[in-house]
Amino acid sequence: MGAVDVAGLVGRARDAEPRAVARLISLVEQGSSALPEVAAALAPFTGNAQVVGITGAPGVGKSTSTNALVRAFRTAGKRVAVIAVDPSSPFSGGALLGDRVRMGDHATDEGVFIRSMATRGHLGGLSWATPQALRVLDAAGFDVVLVETVGVGQSEIEVVALADTTLVLLAPGMGDGIQAAKAGILEIADVFVVNKADRDGADQTARDLKYMISLGRRDRSGPLWRPPVVKTVAASAEGVDAVVEAIAAHQAWMAEHGELAARRLRRAGAEIEAIAVDRVRTRFGPVDALAGRVVAGELDPFAAAEQLISGNLRA
Amino acid sequence: MGAVDVAGLVGRARDAEPRAVARLISLVEQGSSALPEVAAALAPFTGNAQVVGITGAPGVGKSTSTNALVRAFRTAGKRVAVIAVDPSSPFSGGALLGDRVRMGDHATDEGVFIRSMATRGHLGGLSWATPQALRVLDAAGFDVVLVETVGVGQSEIEVVALADTTLVLLAPGMGDGIQAAKAGILEIADVFVVNKADRDGADQTARDLKYMISLGRRDRSGPLWRPPVVKTVAASAEGVDAVVEAIAAHQAWMAEHGELAARRLRRAGAEIEAIAVDRVRTRFGPVDALAGRVVAGELDPFAAAEQLISGNLRA
Repeated sequence: MGAVDVAGLVGRARDAEPRAVARLISLVEQGSSALPEVAAALAPFTGNAQVVGITGAPGVGKSTSTNALVRAFRTAGKRVAVIAVDPSSPFSGGALLGDRVRMGDHATDEGVFIRSMATRGHLGGLSWATPQALRVLDAAGFDVVLVETVGVGQSEIEVVALADTTLVLLAPGMGDGIQAAKAGILEIADVFVVNKADRDGADQTARDLKYMISLGRRDRSGPLWRPPVVKTVAASAEGVDAVVEAIAAHQAWMAEHGELAARRLRRAGAEIEAIAVDRVRTRFGPVDALAGRVVAGELDPFAAAEQLISGNLRA
Repeated sequence: MGAVDVAGLVGRARDAEPRAVARLISLVEQGSSALPEVAAALAPFTGNAQVVGITGAPGVGKSTSTNALVRAFRTAGKRVAVIAVDPSSPFSGGALLGDRVRMGDHATDEGVFIRSMATRGHLGGLSWATPQALRVLDAAGFDVVLVETVGVGQSEIEVVALADTTLVLLAPGMGDGIQAAKAGILEIADVFVVNKADRDGADQTARDLKYMISLGRRDRSGPLWRPPVVKTVAASAEGVDAVVEAIAAHQAWMAEHGELAARRLRRAGAEIEAIAVDRVRTRFGPVDALAGRVVAGELDPFAAAEQLISGNLRA
């Protein structure tokens, strides 16, 4: 592979050239050795995009909701990017095909950029690939970046931890899902969206959520934001404006309480740590010999870990 | 807290005293400073337990299947331990209550030990807490350890990566779940179990799975194991013996192809790395100042990471 013209790419991305943006995200996805240079070139232009995370179990209508939100933000004159993260997929080929389908009526709109990222199995994984893609889109001048995930597992929670505001989507009649996920989703949701609200049970789902929210658990420290519950029928855009309003209300609340700055500080800190850990891991070198002694019962894994780092770390 | 009598605890755990086993696992869960000493005392007695991972979406009947397997292994004269891992729960209080309920007819059976672990938010998380709990049970002489998880997300995949043999459970009529999870479950399943096989659609689910398996994707390198598909009605123990047989067949296949040793080597290596990374992370110290400069766009996260490690790592 030839050298990458990083400065040129970043300049063209700043001029909103979609192919340059796509190329930069590909470099991130591939864990290119040019990443530090890319990150350095992007840094001065970051910090402006509003990042909205979208998560929920399969079948709740995340893609449809994302598309409806894209339309609503476009109507408000904002440039919008979407990153669809699939932590369980090792493929990006299928993802690319999906992107073309998803672009749909946005295909000729230069104010919209949609990209799937298959992050599983990548070196360092989600923990830093997605944040770097966000930096690309931020520097490229997108006002809003929607980060959509496939489910509500731990890795999804990590992804939405990147967001300024996190939407958790549910649909009526998925009680099992609520039950299974409730510990997690109550903590990460800034706005609950009950989609497919024209179906039976939507009111009950909304009531259940409000009850769960009323039980609290979010008041560990600092000011308290109570996530609103918004009902939508994303397929017909019903209620989507109310979601946009709820996002705006959350942003205003965060600005007022210093929470936006606090979240971004935590996010940057986590990002730095993830990269540092990844860098350190590459210096460890092979662990096979130590692992063999652990399997044989000659050494315990803590002692082995000490031996692994003793050659690399200062006392 | 007083000092922990590690040698005494390990000795009593080796004598199959349930309270000593429980106490050692609590030390693991709490990330006790005595952990390295515990691990060193356990090491000579490890490597004998057969570890079976059990995963699947909520509602497929994991707990019922686990209990049926416990009964089957007990009938075969084996001592059996269960670790139920809930990566989304920050609580262990509720888990304890759940354990008493789950013990059910095993409550007076000293050959059975059941324990829930809530691993979320723990320092280092799943990546090393669960393996250490496995070491406790292994050293305590359990012949089989079943590791059951709540779902099929990324963290579940990490958990089952601990297992010698991984069962993936499905139920009829959960097509969405198959679709969403298929990339992941095809790779991790050594045995597929279609539970609730008395329901409509069980044959179709089994056929779909067999078709997916036939498409391959597992033949990247080394010998090929084709996961069998076993139908069960766990509530009435129907088909459970066939699951036990499938597990035995997989174990025999692994032994024949050197795969068991290879898996355990990989597992130990990952465990050592996770502990080492955790140790390194604690040495990094606070990242707030660097994070602030990244948020301000003065520094990129890669450069910040270099600064973070430069004070700690040898050149």
